[in-house]
Amino acid sequence: MSEQDEVVALLGSVRSVAVTSHLAPDGDGLGSGLALVRALKSVGVAARFVSTDGVPRRYRFLPGADDVLRAAALVEPYDAVILIECPERHRPGLSDLDRYRLVNIDHHALNARYAAINWVDPRAAAVGEMIYDLLPALGVALDRDIAVNLYTAIVTDTGSFRYSNTTHRTFEIAAALLSAGCQPAAVATALYEDEPLARLELTRKALGSLVLDPSGRLAWIELDAADVAWSLAHDVDTEDLVNYPRSIAGVEVALFFKDRGHGPVKVSLRSRGRVDVAAFAARFGGGGHKQAAGCSITGKLDEVRDRVLAMLREELGATAGPGPA
Amino acid sequence: MSEQDEVVALLGSVRSVAVTSHLAPDGDGLGSGLALVRALKSVGVAARFVSTDGVPRRYRFLPGADDVLRAAALVEPYDAVILIECPERHRPGLSDLDRYRLVNIDHHALNARYAAINWVDPRAAAVGEMIYDLLPALGVALDRDIAVNLYTAIVTDTGSFRYSNTTHRTFEIAAALLSAGCQPAAVATALYEDEPLARLELTRKALGSLVLDPSGRLAWIELDAADVAWSLAHDVDTEDLVNYPRSIAGVEVALFFKDRGHGPVKVSLRSRGRVDVAAFAARFGGGGHKQAAGCSITGKLDEVRDRVLAMLREELGATAGPGPA
Repeated sequence: MSEQDEVVALLGSVRSVAVTSHLAPDGDGLGSGLALVRALKSVGVAARFVSTDGVPRRYRFLPGADDVLRAAALVEPYDAVILIECPERHRPGLSDLDRYRLVNIDHHALNARYAAINWVDPRAAAVGEMIYDLLPALGVALDRDIAVNLYTAIVTDTGSFRYSNTTHRTFEIAAALLSAGCQPAAVATALYEDEPLARLELTRKALGSLVLDPSGRLAWIELDAADVAWSLAHDVDTEDLVNYPRSIAGVEVALFFKDRGHGPVKVSLRSRGRVDVAAFAARFGGGGHKQAAGCSITGKLDEVRDRVLAMLREELGATAGPGPA
Repeated sequence: MSEQDEVVALLGSVRSVAVTSHLAPDGDGLGSGLALVRALKSVGVAARFVSTDGVPRRYRFLPGADDVLRAAALVEPYDAVILIECPERHRPGLSDLDRYRLVNIDHHALNARYAAINWVDPRAAAVGEMIYDLLPALGVALDRDIAVNLYTAIVTDTGSFRYSNTTHRTFEIAAALLSAGCQPAAVATALYEDEPLARLELTRKALGSLVLDPSGRLAWIELDAADVAWSLAHDVDTEDLVNYPRSIAGVEVALFFKDRGHGPVKVSLRSRGRVDVAAFAARFGGGGHKQAAGCSITGKLDEVRDRVLAMLREELGATAGPGPA
């Protein structure tokens, strides 16, 4: 029995499920999860999305987002708990998960396979593609609300079809989601063109911190504790800022250092070359994909930055990539 | 006989053609034109892309870009000249076009239909979709080089599948182009992630000029003559900067004013609401699409900006859109 078939068999036998994703949930976690919740409800399963961090503002337009239960613990007696896009069981930040039958649906190659049923497909650009494939087996017809959720999952995890995970299948599914009533421009507007003015002010601050390494192969930006406090006060998210250093010609690893003023410094990494940033982040207890990962490192902003850059300079030297032009 | 059939019939009867597009050619003009040149060559037609402005750096990765003839006049005796994405005959900036049989292939609704054969399809997200449809009729098999050119045409004219012109057909074609060997991430990297450091410095300057109108419905940025001279010296293009004011929640019309230090001020307009910016730009001799247009206006930067904003405030009042929240 394939991993997907095991999921189908289980979902055909349950009466109630909780669906969850990782902390600070993203478009794939929320879109895939909300699509699955709606699909299960349509076939009579009582399904609820539970999120420790609730739904970030950027994703509140998703159909079903209003019904997400914000909670750090599960209390009801669900027949199963489905973890979406969680390479490890602790990622949702939910206590007492051990009391439930767990189903792990993910596309991270480095998945710990911690659940009773594990369906892991690293070829999928987004878990949204996997949920799309699940619908016929569940006997669920694609409708507009499911389509908008799955489209959002795919758009966010492919960077609007720009990342190397985008495949022929990705576009085939996108075409089908449009036929079901999803409007790409409406999703793009909600995701990317409904920004507070403060977001652009923050972008300007971040660009002011941009440094291109003399080698030309590393570039980074940073926000200090004051910038981060300001961004929180204005409810501005910062996750895409790392794309600015990433966009520079010749850059192989781009970084974004974020000092929250308390606790460790958050480091986002993007690779466009041979450096596996998931493996790099794992050295600090972080994770992600080969080309997009993150970790948190204890120390002052300057110290963390200098330490990480020194390690990456060494790693880039070791991989003997093309030098500066 | 449909307009498309007329084009097919003509192309089946010629031995030599020049293909051209508008001044400051974009991804659709160049990608569609280079795809057509390659397609025609493969069936024995001597075809050449001629561009008054040559090929901007951003598009030099396109297969066939090296063979583009940079010239402001046609000299050879072509059997026909094909104008791609030119709503008027003067757009290519080529002299002596009247000596040739002209073919007009465009997707602008406001096309002047100035040619012997006019194929205008405003439903096409990009002319690239029209050229894709033409290939089977020309007896041309899709190959990787054609696919990369057409994919670039579609990606640039849909804003990476974010604009409202993106359709089910757009994604179907994208899927087929991937099957022919186009790699979306390679195209995206060439288009958007191969920027000079100066581009980010210019973005920071432009963000420093950002103003959100008190109504919340207009936002704009501007570059003065010194900024523009700096951007030219660093070979940085500025066309996407208008997307920053466009990204602000509630903004209905976004503008970018560019003072080149000589001649008229260049104004780029983007609409996300009911204002038809192509019609607005036409009042100043400009043009474009309903949601993306441009024009050039004689005057000092301050005067031009204030005049255009006053007109737009009046127009927004007249359309009685939603006021500020």
